[in-house]
Formats: sequence, C-alpha cells, structure tokens
Amino acid sequence: MPELRFNRLRDEWVAYSTVRNDRTFLPSGDSCPLCPSGPGGKSEVPLDDYEVVVFENRFPALGPDPDEHGRPVRPPTSGCEVVVYTPDHHATLADLPLERVRLLVDVWADRYLALGSRPEVAYVYEFENKGEIIGVTLHHPHGQIYALPFVPPVPATELAQAERYRHATGNCLHCDLLAAECGGPRLVFEAGGMAAFVPEAARWPYEVHLYPLQHRASLATLDHGEREAFAAALLRVARAYDRHFGFSTPYVMAIHQAPVSSGGPAAAMGSARSGSGRGTVPPEPPGDSSEWPDAHLHVEFYPPHRRPDRLKYLAGVELGAGTFVNDTAPEQTAADLREAVER
Amino acid sequence: MPELRFNRLRDEWVAYSTVRNDRTFLPSGDSCPLCPSGPGGKSEVPLDDYEVVVFENRFPALGPDPDEHGRPVRPPTSGCEVVVYTPDHHATLADLPLERVRLLVDVWADRYLALGSRPEVAYVYEFENKGEIIGVTLHHPHGQIYALPFVPPVPATELAQAERYRHATGNCLHCDLLAAECGGPRLVFEAGGMAAFVPEAARWPYEVHLYPLQHRASLATLDHGEREAFAAALLRVARAYDRHFGFSTPYVMAIHQAPVSSGGPAAAMGSARSGSGRGTVPPEPPGDSSEWPDAHLHVEFYPPHRRPDRLKYLAGVELGAGTFVNDTAPEQTAADLREAVER
Repeated sequence: MPELRFNRLRDEWVAYSTVRNDRTFLPSGDSCPLCPSGPGGKSEVPLDDYEVVVFENRFPALGPDPDEHGRPVRPPTSGCEVVVYTPDHHATLADLPLERVRLLVDVWADRYLALGSRPEVAYVYEFENKGEIIGVTLHHPHGQIYALPFVPPVPATELAQAERYRHATGNCLHCDLLAAECGGPRLVFEAGGMAAFVPEAARWPYEVHLYPLQHRASLATLDHGEREAFAAALLRVARAYDRHFGFSTPYVMAIHQAPVSSGGPAAAMGSARSGSGRGTVPPEPPGDSSEWPDAHLHVEFYPPHRRPDRLKYLAGVELGAGTFVNDTAPEQTAADLREAVER
Repeated sequence: MPELRFNRLRDEWVAYSTVRNDRTFLPSGDSCPLCPSGPGGKSEVPLDDYEVVVFENRFPALGPDPDEHGRPVRPPTSGCEVVVYTPDHHATLADLPLERVRLLVDVWADRYLALGSRPEVAYVYEFENKGEIIGVTLHHPHGQIYALPFVPPVPATELAQAERYRHATGNCLHCDLLAAECGGPRLVFEAGGMAAFVPEAARWPYEVHLYPLQHRASLATLDHGEREAFAAALLRVARAYDRHFGFSTPYVMAIHQAPVSSGGPAAAMGSARSGSGRGTVPPEPPGDSSEWPDAHLHVEFYPPHRRPDRLKYLAGVELGAGTFVNDTAPEQTAADLREAVER
C-alpha cells in the first residue's frame, strides 16, 4: 500500500491507501496541520505566514507504485498534493480577495505543468472538497491535486464524447454547449470572457459549470487577463452559493483540463485501460490545444444541497445503476443562482 | 416533469422529478405510509395485514414520458414501485425470517417479468436503500424497483466488459471472477450454491458481491432450491454487517440482472445511448441466458461505513474524476465479515 487495482467489472482503477484510514480527523483550530506554526513549529507549514502554500499530502492515496519486482516506479513523492489557500483557518474560497484567487490560479497552472511533466503522470486532477458533509477531514481552506498515472473515468468519458461529437460535426462539443447556454434560461452569468451555467442535464440540483468562452485546454494556456477573469468568475460562483443558501455552502469543485501524456490522446486514453500509463518518451509541455482538440478547460461545482434543509444523497439508483435522479429543474436552480449573483 | 434528459458530456440519462422534492420525509411511526392502516385507512396499504406488498411509488422518478407531440408514451403507471418487506415498521431485512425473504425473491422475480414485459422497458432495476445516512426518507423496511427505458450505465458497463472478456477468452467474466474468489482471501462464504466475497478492486471498504455459482441471467431463472439458497445468502450478508459493526448497518443493495429488451443485447444497449429504448416488437420472456450470455445475476452491497465511527464519503476524486479511493484492504474487510458470519 498504496496500491492501484483494476476493477474489471467497472473498467476502472481503484486506489487503496490504508494509511488514510487513520488520517487526521477534524482537529481543533490550535492543532490544525495547515495553519502556519512558525519556524520549528509542528504543523505542515513551519512558517510565520504565507499566501498560498503547496506540499505533499502526508496521507497520500497514490504511489509509489511498485513494478513487477516490487521496486517503486514513481518518484519518492506520490503526486498527491495539498494546496492551502490562506493562513486564515476560518476563511473559505468565497472569502478570499481577488488577488489571492488570482495567485491560486497561477499555482494550479504551475503545478499542472510541473506534475504533468513527470513521465509516469497521465492526468493532473485539481479539485476542492468543501464542508464536513462532503467528508473533509480538515476545515482549513484547501484544495488537493492528484497526479494520476491514468486518465480517470469522468474526464475520459468527456474526452471520448467530445471526440465523437467532433468527428460527427467538426465542432468542439464544449464550445457548442457553451454557445447554446449563453443567453439561455440556465445561464448564471457571463462576464470577462467566462460563462457559468447549470447544465441542461445536471446531476446535482445546483451543479454549475464554469468555462472560458475561448477554447482553452488548461489553466496553463490562459493569459494574464483570462486568469484574472477566471479567478473573478470562481469567486462569483462560490459567493452566489453562499448568498443563495444563506450559509457557507459545501461543494465539490472539480477542474477538468487536458491530459498531460506526452504521447497524446491515444497514449493517455489507452493508459486508462491498460494501466501502464507510464510513458518513456520525454514529456512535452502538456495541455496544448492542438494536441488535445477535445479538451476544453472547465470547472464543475457539485453542491450536495437540494434545499437549505435537504441534501441530495447518492443512493441505489446513482450508485448501483449509475443514473442520477434530480428533484429540481435546472432552469429553476439557475434562476435562483442568477438572483443571488445580482443581489 | 417527470422528464428524462440526456447528458452529452457524461453519456448518460438523468431523470428529473420535481414532485419528489416535497416527498414524505422521515414520518413518525404512526403516520408511516408503508404501515398497514386497515380498511379505509390513510396509508398506502389500507389493509389489516400483509406479508410483502408492492405498489406504485407516489413520488415517481420516471414517466409517463411524452413523445414529440407531448403525448405520454409510457403506460399510466410509471414503473417506479415500492416493495414493502413486512408490516413491522421497525424490522430490517436482516430481521426477517427466511420464509419472508424467500417470498421477497419470488416477488422480485415476478415484478422483473411483469415490468420487463412492457414494450417501453429495457431494464428492471431492483434495489434497497437502507439507513438515514444513505438518504432514505421512510424508515419502514422496503426496497424499490425502477423499470427503465434504457440500460443504465453501471449494468451497461458490466455487460460491455463481460462481452469483451467473452470475445477474448470464450468464458463468462463473472464465472471466472467467482472461480478465482472461491477459497481465496476475499471470500466471505460459499453455501448452497451461492458465494459472497469482497471484490478484489472494491470501491467501498465493506462492499460484498453475492452470486449464484451457476450462470443465471436473472432471479426469474432460479429454480425453487436456488431461490431458497439465494434468500438464505442475502440474510447471511445482511446479518454479517450488523454483527460486524454492532448496529443495524446502512447499505445500498443493488440487484444486477439481464436487461429485458426483446430486441436482445444490441437493441437494449443501443437504447442506453439513443434514448428511444421503446421497442415495438412484442416482448419475449426476458432474462433468458442464451439471449444474454454476458449477464450473470448478482447482488452488490455498498455499506458506507469504513469503521463503526467513520463513513466513506464520495467527494472530489470519486465524483469529479470517477476514481474511488478506498482506505481499507479488501482482504482485511473480507476477514472481518467472515468472522462475523461464523460468530
């Protein structure tokens, strides 16, 4: 352990990490491992202060994976990283000033490039879990990064669907979905070249997808102005949730970017199935649009609330059949969020 | 509403049913809609008593679906049914006598055949959600049935994987997995021609798969002795959970059987993608093994606990990437459950 096993019925990798069963669980503020503890301090950040800090997860879900002789084939670090947004234990993403979120976008872009340049990495997955109800074990505002040796199922499905659509129409599926949503009943806002909407067939009542209108493969390909607009749009979504629900709203925030395998789409997608995923070719800078025509950077937010006093649970239909049942109309939840944005 | 929408990024149907947002939520015992209320009573079961009772869900997730002219193409009933296991409000599946569970197996088999004979139905999904933590809104012991106009993603993936495996090896994937697990470190028990094990690449710490050792496509194809053994095995799994954890253990129980489209595999699987799924050919008795060589009846249990005091949450990695991170070794949890079975 950690160990990756291939689930043959589900056609997917499952990560095992028994060290995580005993991970730090909701520590009180004065023993928070993400707070700055000063030089020589006992937290993960023995500094007096910081803006954004990134370090290896002490309880990694992945690597180093052994080869057939039991030798590790990953570097000594696991590729599981923690991204701490602020030294303020009680803040949330929605509370941060724009400049801090702008810096966070740079950090994500940098880690995407750095982790993506490793030969064993096929996909850099950057995300945030927020809220006890989502299962966070540390309240201090932070996100995570998993550098995966395969393209995981959700991005793999999106890429395959976009490839199929491009072959049928010549267009980017995401670009066409975006064009259809802009000005429509599910749009939450469009500003600075960014658009946020509740998808037509949302799985979650208040699911929001945030896109740059321009076709961009990753955060690393956004220019300075786009990064600023992207940071502002992230804040706008997070704050709309808090305003609408009247409390700091839990969510999963998933950033979907292009895979990073230097072998291009065929190699990286193949690795999702074969499990090798460890190229031997020296890596190219990842996330190039021309290499990944079917990747269009976007952020998916999944808040679990369907009403302020009710959660959407995943149960038999979602988990055992794979079909989501949604009790709300996306047009209604989009209207709720538009109202919260404009308030 | 209800309405099915196709999610083009995820390649899946999502069901919308706003009537469900206001469904009955955890009523107290004396206003339980599943308790017998006597002739003229106000519950869903105006009888003095019953053994197992099945009726239409008052808050259905599905149908009647309109055609392009807005006319319903489903029968007036939605195909969403509630299966009440016992009049005893406080019982659970694990508390029932064997004869009652044996009857339940007959009821599932009958409803599979009856709902499966409808021309618009491609898949009959029978399942149970147990426990508030899973999101049940009624405590009274019951399961549910969804008669779906498409083969949902999880069974569709299993069927596709088994078909691929059969083309490569000539064997049933499930039969070969079963043979590998019997007598191995992840077997929980083997009895009466039934086997239960924690899968090698389990998504959930205490996930259990229960199979008939003989290749059977559905409950409807089990003979009398097999149904009895199947009922006994279900009880053994449910009771092992309760014994191991020391409390009535929440779970999702998903029954995976053959699709029921009379058009056979190609038609039913196609319907998962095209959305029509409504055959015009008169239906054949569904679940015939020769028609569905890649379906092998089994039950999947997903309890959310990873320890008595900790839950496995689905968060960013599972929901946004589709990759499960499991903090326990399947060999260890299988040993725990073996010990509970033998206690």
